[in-house]
This record gives sequence, structure tokens and C-alpha cells, in this order.
Amino acid sequence: MSFNTFGKIFRFTTWGESHGPAIGCVVDGCPPNISINEKDIQAELNKRKPGQSKFTTQRKEDDKVNILSGVFEGKTTGTPISMIIYNKDMKSRDYETIKNKFRPGHADYTYFKKYGIRDYRGGGRQSARETASRVAAGAVAKKVLENKIGKKYKVVGAVTHLGILGCDTKNWNDKFISKNPLFCPDKSILTLWEKYLLSIRKAGSSCGAVIEVRAKGVPIGLGAPIYSKLDMDLASAMMSINAVKGVNIGSGMSSAQLTGEENSDEIFRNRKRINFKSNNAGGILGGISSGQDIIVSFAVKPTSSILSKRQTIDKFGKNTSISVRGRHDPCVGIRAVPIGEAMMHCVILDHYLMNNAQCGS
Amino acid sequence: MSFNTFGKIFRFTTWGESHGPAIGCVVDGCPPNISINEKDIQAELNKRKPGQSKFTTQRKEDDKVNILSGVFEGKTTGTPISMIIYNKDMKSRDYETIKNKFRPGHADYTYFKKYGIRDYRGGGRQSARETASRVAAGAVAKKVLENKIGKKYKVVGAVTHLGILGCDTKNWNDKFISKNPLFCPDKSILTLWEKYLLSIRKAGSSCGAVIEVRAKGVPIGLGAPIYSKLDMDLASAMMSINAVKGVNIGSGMSSAQLTGEENSDEIFRNRKRINFKSNNAGGILGGISSGQDIIVSFAVKPTSSILSKRQTIDKFGKNTSISVRGRHDPCVGIRAVPIGEAMMHCVILDHYLMNNAQCGS
Amino acid sequence: MSFNTFGKIFRFTTWGESHGPAIGCVVDGCPPNISINEKDIQAELNKRKPGQSKFTTQRKEDDKVNILSGVFEGKTTGTPISMIIYNKDMKSRDYETIKNKFRPGHADYTYFKKYGIRDYRGGGRQSARETASRVAAGAVAKKVLENKIGKKYKVVGAVTHLGILGCDTKNWNDKFISKNPLFCPDKSILTLWEKYLLSIRKAGSSCGAVIEVRAKGVPIGLGAPIYSKLDMDLASAMMSINAVKGVNIGSGMSSAQLTGEENSDEIFRNRKRINFKSNNAGGILGGISSGQDIIVSFAVKPTSSILSKRQTIDKFGKNTSISVRGRHDPCVGIRAVPIGEAMMHCVILDHYLMNNAQCGS
Amino acid sequence: MSFNTFGKIFRFTTWGESHGPAIGCVVDGCPPNISINEKDIQAELNKRKPGQSKFTTQRKEDDKVNILSGVFEGKTTGTPISMIIYNKDMKSRDYETIKNKFRPGHADYTYFKKYGIRDYRGGGRQSARETASRVAAGAVAKKVLENKIGKKYKVVGAVTHLGILGCDTKNWNDKFISKNPLFCPDKSILTLWEKYLLSIRKAGSSCGAVIEVRAKGVPIGLGAPIYSKLDMDLASAMMSINAVKGVNIGSGMSSAQLTGEENSDEIFRNRKRINFKSNNAGGILGGISSGQDIIVSFAVKPTSSILSKRQTIDKFGKNTSISVRGRHDPCVGIRAVPIGEAMMHCVILDHYLMNNAQCGS
Repeated sequence: MSFNTFGKIFRFTTWGESHGPAIGCVVDGCPPNISINEKDIQAELNKRKPGQSKFTTQRKEDDKVNILSGVFEGKTTGTPISMIIYNKDMKSRDYETIKNKFRPGHADYTYFKKYGIRDYRGGGRQSARETASRVAAGAVAKKVLENKIGKKYKVVGAVTHLGILGCDTKNWNDKFISKNPLFCPDKSILTLWEKYLLSIRKAGSSCGAVIEVRAKGVPIGLGAPIYSKLDMDLASAMMSINAVKGVNIGSGMSSAQLTGEENSDEIFRNRKRINFKSNNAGGILGGISSGQDIIVSFAVKPTSSILSKRQTIDKFGKNTSISVRGRHDPCVGIRAVPIGEAMMHCVILDHYLMNNAQCGS
Repeated sequence: MSFNTFGKIFRFTTWGESHGPAIGCVVDGCPPNISINEKDIQAELNKRKPGQSKFTTQRKEDDKVNILSGVFEGKTTGTPISMIIYNKDMKSRDYETIKNKFRPGHADYTYFKKYGIRDYRGGGRQSARETASRVAAGAVAKKVLENKIGKKYKVVGAVTHLGILGCDTKNWNDKFISKNPLFCPDKSILTLWEKYLLSIRKAGSSCGAVIEVRAKGVPIGLGAPIYSKLDMDLASAMMSINAVKGVNIGSGMSSAQLTGEENSDEIFRNRKRINFKSNNAGGILGGISSGQDIIVSFAVKPTSSILSKRQTIDKFGKNTSISVRGRHDPCVGIRAVPIGEAMMHCVILDHYLMNNAQCGS
Repeated sequence: MSFNTFGKIFRFTTWGESHGPAIGCVVDGCPPNISINEKDIQAELNKRKPGQSKFTTQRKEDDKVNILSGVFEGKTTGTPISMIIYNKDMKSRDYETIKNKFRPGHADYTYFKKYGIRDYRGGGRQSARETASRVAAGAVAKKVLENKIGKKYKVVGAVTHLGILGCDTKNWNDKFISKNPLFCPDKSILTLWEKYLLSIRKAGSSCGAVIEVRAKGVPIGLGAPIYSKLDMDLASAMMSINAVKGVNIGSGMSSAQLTGEENSDEIFRNRKRINFKSNNAGGILGGISSGQDIIVSFAVKPTSSILSKRQTIDKFGKNTSISVRGRHDPCVGIRAVPIGEAMMHCVILDHYLMNNAQCGS
Repeated sequence: MSFNTFGKIFRFTTWGESHGPAIGCVVDGCPPNISINEKDIQAELNKRKPGQSKFTTQRKEDDKVNILSGVFEGKTTGTPISMIIYNKDMKSRDYETIKNKFRPGHADYTYFKKYGIRDYRGGGRQSARETASRVAAGAVAKKVLENKIGKKYKVVGAVTHLGILGCDTKNWNDKFISKNPLFCPDKSILTLWEKYLLSIRKAGSSCGAVIEVRAKGVPIGLGAPIYSKLDMDLASAMMSINAVKGVNIGSGMSSAQLTGEENSDEIFRNRKRINFKSNNAGGILGGISSGQDIIVSFAVKPTSSILSKRQTIDKFGKNTSISVRGRHDPCVGIRAVPIGEAMMHCVILDHYLMNNAQCGS
């Protein structure tokens, strides 16, 4: 049982509401003697932070992280790493109008029905602000994996579909991704995406996105059948991100349309290396990593807060309508890229440690 | 940590290999005083069992279940329910040829690399035979939920895509599903599907499938944010099924292509009932059930064992090829329907009990 | 797996080192709509805080707690409750002399051997300062239980043995316990204890203690056989407290010396009430609460930091000796009383919720 | 959450009632490639089995174990090991008289109040027969540890107090323990113990016992602070055994009576070896193994089923009395020796794997 904890050995627990004094996380099970400092974590947080371009919400979140424990003289000690991010730029008055109304597509209604109480300010605990905590945890996991596996280990995420517009993943370029505000991997499509997104923004509407995260250099043998399969945990990890509605491993949903011949990922040896002719499996066979790149993609639904008036009810059960004014994010999916990367790091490290446990020396 | 255990409060642990003496499961955390007997469980197992039509493998599995504990005078006692299914019809000699070769698309290679040893007979632990154990566990969960929630609670699964052929889900008919061997929900497409599948079978090829599972009558408030979201656990549950590569909740991957207006599932009250205009969310908001139908779909990749010769390596690292003879299943996805239903029951009951724990009286 | 988390449904995760910027805990799984505020928690913390009498260490710890999340408008929301206590009065220079030496009886040596690194300042993570976090978690649990069970629920702990001096538990007086700095339950022995402890203090020596914690008003049926027995979890809880070396339930170790006749706790009905003639079982039968008072006692070893010179080794493996100067606590066991009470609250609430889960409506 | 599962990585789940068709366990998380067969497990079970001398119950339990999964060609495969022991010699009619009466000291009353139903035959799930399953799990753990650590690893348990009679542990002799039916470690006291026990048996009475279990050759560094301390898990393990009421680590409850000087276990180096002058800590400092022998002792209460008439109530709440006829065990503690050893193996292996996970390469 772990309502607010993710992971099995490398575990992080997040806490905090959007408009409380702070948010944070406690990372447990981290191996000792790994160099880490606040700058390492801040670098990952900065990728996620809003207000960085005209394409995302103008809410300013400094997301300045402090490490409160578990690191001594620049190294992890094996004890829990507590990290805190104080909340700023909280305009609680903005939310007074939605205090008693349930925003469609949000979790307002279900939180209220479940708990009989909710912190409505900025979505409270439901707010995507929680994801900053996981990015911090993911930054720790990344450092550990780079230390254990070395530089061949690398995780890169990108947006592969922006609303109705896909991109050509054959043009995937890691460096380009980090240089554009849409995490677009395909230079040839970026201008079109920008125009499309600005038009959606102007219309007060929103669109969804598909994010793909790739991990290279993952050792063979991570993942534990039957109920700790690597793909189970990746699906669970990505589905835990706000607004995610679908997860694919490798060919994912499309694999239903392949024939056995197309899908088989034939194996061959070339000199000392084992190779595969394709990677429909997304690097995972029987729940265990095969040494191929791990490839996960997931769909983020369009931002629920839009300017158009939507029909809903209030907490007293009366029919009413709502339209969200103020800061508006036309595509929340974009900011999910660093979050997906963080979850990938966490799941891989968790399975790395689990594999050490059962199959180590 | 739970390599072979699924669930948090209602937990089941499965064990057994395809060609060992038996397989089985231990169900723990089951509420007491629920009427249950072997017939209830056998009825669910019979839905899954192979050799029932010309469309699935001819391997005969009687799948006869015995309850060894936890039920006294026809009622659960709150102690663990151990169930066993003895293996029969095991032709171990069939597998001698694949003893040293890794079948592409199967977990042969990854199991061997992870553990340094594997029971190659019939896939051993990787075999889909393991899923019989979960169907047994699901049958227990179903009985509990019918007792706690009543007859309005109902789970129905169907095949919505057979390879490249979809169906019209507007024609979904619960009764029809149970009467055709393909679990097809749309009467108008069945004949076409049958012809298509027979042609694939004759060609020695295989195809994938998409399965959709719907749960009606699920109470509002099940699911626990942030890291025990109902959709996380459903994604994890479905992804744990052999050969599953993608999972959708509601509109799933397609939600990326919707606008905020289309996606919003507006809420309104009609007399005493709260209604939603659509169900893109698949009945889950912020990880918590909303009272709408829970809708999950997942893709099963095409059967990896096909007659065409495929390139691969052997356990000594040498290049070789393989083609699987003998009993052949052109679409393993079909048999995933009762498995998906079973996992749905288990996840819902688990969250029902979790919600009792934290939010009960 | 949960290195720094205690509990199954009501779970708390503690973090922080003695001389870091802060310590704290995250409480998860707390039921919603329970009134709680910082004063409630502070009141429990104040019982534990050092520097309150001449009998405990003069280290001043304000132990001022802040709630950072999970409470909205004075009530729990069902989301994680993060609490922080900033560290003050940290004289890190005091610890420079023990930087490279392992104090016998402390965990210096084992932490160093396990992790290859340790925060030696004030014992770092090993410090009993961690227990402030659990007292905070226990204060939350207490509020929940008082809300759920009502005022008949009450937990009281006391010191029943101070070094070689026992007391007469027939004289146990709840009110008296809270009025003396030694948590002594027996007025007739207090003066003797005070003299004894002062003499130990003057000698620079230390003594152990036995703490007994009693819970009244615990409902029948808490505890889940076989491996979540209430007594297992209580033993585990108490053994997790720094310096605890033994745990008894009811008659505990002494039960080995009873005959079956003496030990049997006969049952009888008196009007509508079920009664027991004795309580050797400490209120737990087969791991399940019987409705009698839950009685747990545990032994705390003498403070390891004493003025006498002790032989030891340094981190380079050389023989050396050590004697601890400065603030000195002649009996750490005394301050374990509120900690034992806190752990009792947490275990009982955890099992209360677990019982709701499986056996609730 | 794990009602019937013990352990974190090396986990076992037990199931079964005393008078059902079988009992058994599923061991999960076992490392692969460990040689093991049914004889290894049977050897441990034989130590525990009743009916072996005039000092224990004459109930014959063959306790013949079958391995159903997880072992292939004599080696563990890393998949779950399911073991089953069929029940024989079940005289269900013997128990008809206690069907409606609650035996004092047993869990009849609490099971019935908790679950509203119980399998009363032979105590059902409460029966100490369940411990056969753990002995089987412990046998697996032993094989793994002998493989990983080597022959210097050794666990030996003995009875150190039989009722009111202690023994001199300075005379502890491993070989002697295995040769006498009372697991007495001290040759000089055995005859007295035998006479004492026979007199208790004749009187239809019973006595308790203290069991001490010692583990040699345990590596330094096992145990994970704060809430997976090795001593926590050992306390929990031993307290889970039927009829155990107290647990000591090292000096245990007696440590309360020591001075700081006496208790300190001074450290010194002799050539290349780190030594301790005493072992009051029982080999555990701060929850982590120190390389000294791990020493745990626990008290088993006297058998509750005695010939003397005891007052009790029936399931309808009426006052009545009961006296247990038939097979009678004057000291259940004796048979707890192999159970304590099994639990020691399981806890040590679990922590060995946990330490591999976090602190391995």
C-alpha cells in the first residue's frame, strides 16, 4: 500500500498542495556514495518549469529545490533524501470562483465525493504542480544510474504528436529537442507546430499530445515477472502523470495491427553483439529488458481548463456552467516531457536495484 | 516488493510453470463470509480455456480448479484461499527442439540472460498458462463485489479489433459476446472476422487484437491519488498480461487528438442523477472513479509462435533460425478477454477495500 | 520494502539527520475530515523534548513542528501530511572528536561498514532525534482514533523499571505519571528513583529502563493473522525505537515460567459484558485484539555515551579509546515513554484501518 | 500490506488450515541457480514434526513436502517455489465438542469476533500446523545463504528455559542439541528437564519455554534503518510464531538492568580481526549487523489446551467450561526451535538481498 509513494526499493513519496506553503518529496532506498547536489536537481526542474515560453502557462513557478537530508559533504549517505520546494506566486483569490464548482475534466468532483473535503485552491493536491516533486526524484535516480551504468545510459523524451499533428520520428534529433520549447524532435515540423499551437491558444482552446521517452544503455535483465514486469511499472508510472490516458510500449496499440511476421523482432549476432532487426517490443520481452532501447509513449489529454463555457454542477448538486479565465496552458502535454523522463529514470533504477537484490552476487 | 503478487489489500500470488505438476494461486485479503465454491471459479476458467474452437490452440487444458483453503462450509473465512490446477496434456517432448534456441518475440532470451537458467518446456513460467491463475483470482473478486455492490455491478469484455479489422462498438451487445468464440461484440462483423482469422491460421501466420473491458456499477470514489490511482493500477494490471503492449483508459491514445472542448465530459444533473455528456475519461478523473462506466482497452501483439522461419540465436550465441510447428494459436488476443475481465475485478475490489480502509466509517 | 516508512495503510516516512537543517515526516493514508492542528502535535512533542529536567540531556530542542500539507481549514483532506521540525542548537563542533572514532554501543561502526559513509555529526540519522518525527505521526494517529473510537480510547505509558529499581505497578496512576519528570507510575518509589538517577548522573554513568504502554478501549478484532498480527507489529514498532533490546506482550518473557492453568486468562460473561480473569495475553490472542487492554513493555539499554573511557577502534581500524564529554543523558529510556505511546497509536490506527478494509461493510 | 506473507524481497506466503486438504507456502524472490531438492526441505521439517518423543503431542503429521514449481533440474529458477504438504491424520470428530466453545488462551474468540466465521477444526488457520510451511520456506533460505555466504554461516537454536528451569548457556553444545528431544543445549540439565516435563504431562498441565537462536557468520551491514532494522524484523518474525509473547535481542529485557559501562560491548582490533569484548547487543547496532553472532531469544507461553477445567463462554455468549481431552502437548515451546531457526534464516536472507539491492555494486 502506498497512496503517495512510488517504487519498490528506490521509492519516493511526494506531498504538498498547489497553494500550501510548500511541496516536496522524500526519496528512500538511494544507494550511498553518489555525488549529488542541488544544482543537479535544479537543472531537471528547470526543464519542467512553466512560464518559459509563450506556449505554456504564464504562472511563474521558481521551483527552487532545497535538499534537507540524506546528502553529506556532497554525497548520498543511503538515508532518505528530503527535498522541498516552497510555493510562490500563489494567487489564491483567483480560485475563489471555482470554490464550489466542479471543473469538467478535472478531479474536483471525484476528490470531493471521495474525501468529502478538498483544497480547491489551484487544484490542491490534484494540481500538476505535484510533478515537480517527481522530477526532483528522477534527477536523483538519473545521477545514480549514470554512476552505476556510465555515460552510455541516456534517457531522452520528446513530443511526437501535438494534437492532430504528428512528426516524423525518423528525423528524431536529441540535441534539437533540448533547443526548442515544444520538445519537438523533428526540425522540419516545428514551425507548423508553433503556428498550430498559437492558434489554439488564441482560440482559448487546448490540444493533447503524445510524448515518447527513450532509454538507451539499459542493461539486459531488468524487470521481474510476473507482477513486477518492467513494462507494467512503466505503464503505471506514466499513467500516474496528470492527464495521461494511454500508454504504449514499443509499437503499443499499433501492434494489434501487425502480423506475427512483422512483429517478431528477429535476433541475430553480428561479431560479438546481439542485435534485433526491429524493436516493436520497445526493448522489453516477457517484462524483462532485452538490451534494446526502452521505448515508451503516452498520450496526454487536452488541458481541461479552457475559455469556452462548459456545463457542470456545483457542490450542492445544482446545474451551472464554468469557463476558466486567467492563466491558460494550451497544451499541458508539452511539460510532460521532463516528467516522463523522470519517471523512466525512477522505474529503471528501481528495477536495477531489484535485479541486484535477486540476481546480484 | 512483490514479484509474483498482484494487489495491495486483495492480493493474489501466482505460481507454477506450464509443464510442471501444477499451477495455482493464493488469494489473500478476501473479506469473510462470502459464498463461493469451485463451480463459480470453474465457470470463469472455462471462458478462457483453449481448444474450444477452431480459432484457438488445440492444446487441451482442462483447467480444473481445486480450492485447498480459506473456504469453510461454502463461505470465505478471511484466511488465504489457495487454488490449484493440475497440469495435464503436457507434451514435453514437443519442446526439445527449442531447448537451446531463443524464440523471437518470446521471453526466452531475456529469462535466460536474467536468471542464467530457464524452464524451457512450454515457456515455463513465461507461458500464458499462468493467466489461468488470475482468472481464478478474478472469479473470487467478482463474487465479493457482487456481494458488496449488488447486481448492478457488471464487467464485460470483448475483442474490438481483430488484427486490421475493427468493429462498430455502437453495436456492442453483451449477450452476443458470450455466444461467439471470438468475443466479438458486433454481430454485423463476425463473419468477416471468422474468415479473416481462418485465412491467417491457414497461412501459419498470426494477428493481434484490441480488447475492451467495461465495468458498470462501480461506486464513486475508488482510486487513491497520487500513486495508487485507479487508472495506474488498471494500466499495470492489463500490461501484466502476456503480449499486451498498450493500454488505454477511455479515449486513451486518441485523446491526444481531441480539443479541450471535445474532451471535457460535461457534467449535468437530471433529477437526482449526476450525468456526463460523454465518457472520454473512461470513468476516472484524477485517478478516482466518477461513477461512469470504467472503460479500459489494451492491445495484444500477434502470437510470436508462427510457422514462418525466423532468424534468431541459440543459447551459445550462434546464429540460427526457428519455425514453430505443432499446435498454433493464430490470435492469442482472443483468450485475453476473460483475463482482462478478471484483472478488472481484482483491481476494482482492491480499490474498494482500500477506500473502505481510509474513507470508511 | 520501506527502509524509512512505518505502517501499511496509515504510513509515516521519516527523514532527517540530527545536525542537518531539519527533520520531518510524511504521514500518508490518514482518513479525511479529522480536525487537527499544530498545537495537537506540539503537545505530544513537548512530552518528549529534552532539557526539561535535571534528569535528561541539557541539549535544547525546541521541536517546533510545522504542518506543510494535508490539512485544509483545520481538517485532514486525506492527502499526505508533511510535518517539519527545523534543527536548532546544533553544535557541530562538539562532534569533531568523534568524527573518526566509532563509539561502542552506537551504530557508528555498522553505518560506516554498511554505507561506506556516514554523517557523524550528532549521530546523524542514527540519532534519537528521529523519534520526534514519530511522535508527530503518533499525534495524528491519536486524533484519528479519538475521533473514530471516542474518549474511551486512551493510551498511557510509564517507566516501570529504572535500572535495577522496579516499581509496584499495582500503584499505577495515570495522572501521577504526567506530573513527574521520570514518567514514574508509582508515587511511593519516585524519590528513590530520583536519588538513584542523580547518583548515576554524577558518576557519569547510565542505566537502562523498562517502559510499559497500555491502550484502553481498543476494539475487538484488530490484527490480521498470520503475518500482520497486532503483536508482531507492536514488537516491530517498539524494537524500532533507538536502544530498545526486548519487547513483551502482556506477561511477555515471564510467561515461559507460568503453568497452563496460571496463564489461561479464563473468560466469563457478567451481564452483557465479556470479561477475562487475567490479562497475561496483553489483550492479544492469535494476533488479534480481544477487547482487553493492550499491554506492551520494552527494555531500553543504558545510554551508550558515558564519561568512562571505553576501548574502541577508529575508521582506519586502529585501536584507540573514547569517552564522551559534554551533554549527557543518564537514562535515555525515560524519553522513550512518549515515543512508545506514539508507536502504539500508529500501530492501532493502522490495524483499525486494515480491519475496516477487509472486514468493514 | 501482506496478511499472510512474510518478508520484503525473499517473501513467503503461507496458506491452509489444520484440517483442510493441505497446507503450503509460496516462496518468492528466491535467487536463481541454487541447488535444492525436497530432501533438503524434508530434513528441516522432520525436526519440527510432532509425535517423535513422549514429550510432545502424539498427533502424527507426516509433513511430507512436495515442490510444485520454481525448481528445474534441481536448481531454483528465480520463479516462485510452491510447496505443498497434504494433511493426514485429521480426526475432525475430535473437535466437535469445541465447535461452539471458545478455548481460553486460544484465538477462537478473537477469530470469531473478527471474521464472524471460523474453521474450528483443530484450530483451523490458527493452528501451529501453519508453522510447517515456514520451516519449508526457511529450508530454502538456508540453502541460499549457505550458497552465498558459505559454510561459516550457521544457525542453531535451543531451549534455554523449560518452564521454571533454566540451563547454563556456558555449556551450550551444538551437537548435543540435535541429539536430545528437548533441544536442550546443556547436557548437565537434561535429565532434570525430562523429569520435570513428564510430571507436567502426567498432571495434564503445561509449561512455557524460552528459545534462543544464534546465527554465526552473518556479514556486517545487514539491516536497514530506520524501519527495516534487522532487530525489528527478527522481533516481528519471532512474535509471529504461535504462542510467543516476548522477544529479546542479545541481553534483551535484562539490558535495562545493566550500567552503561557493563553494556558497552567495547571494540578492539586483534591483528586483522575486529573483535568485541561482549555481545550484549546480540550482534546488532542501530538495526544493522555488526559481524558478531546474531542472538535472539523468545518466550513461548504454556500450551493453552490443558486437562484442567477452565471457565469460558460459548459462541452464543453463555458461560460454560471446557477441558481439553485427547492428544496433549505439555510444552509447545520445544517444537518452536526449528521454527525459530527457520525465521532466522528467512530474515537474514531477506536483509542480505536488501543490502545487495541498495549497497551492492
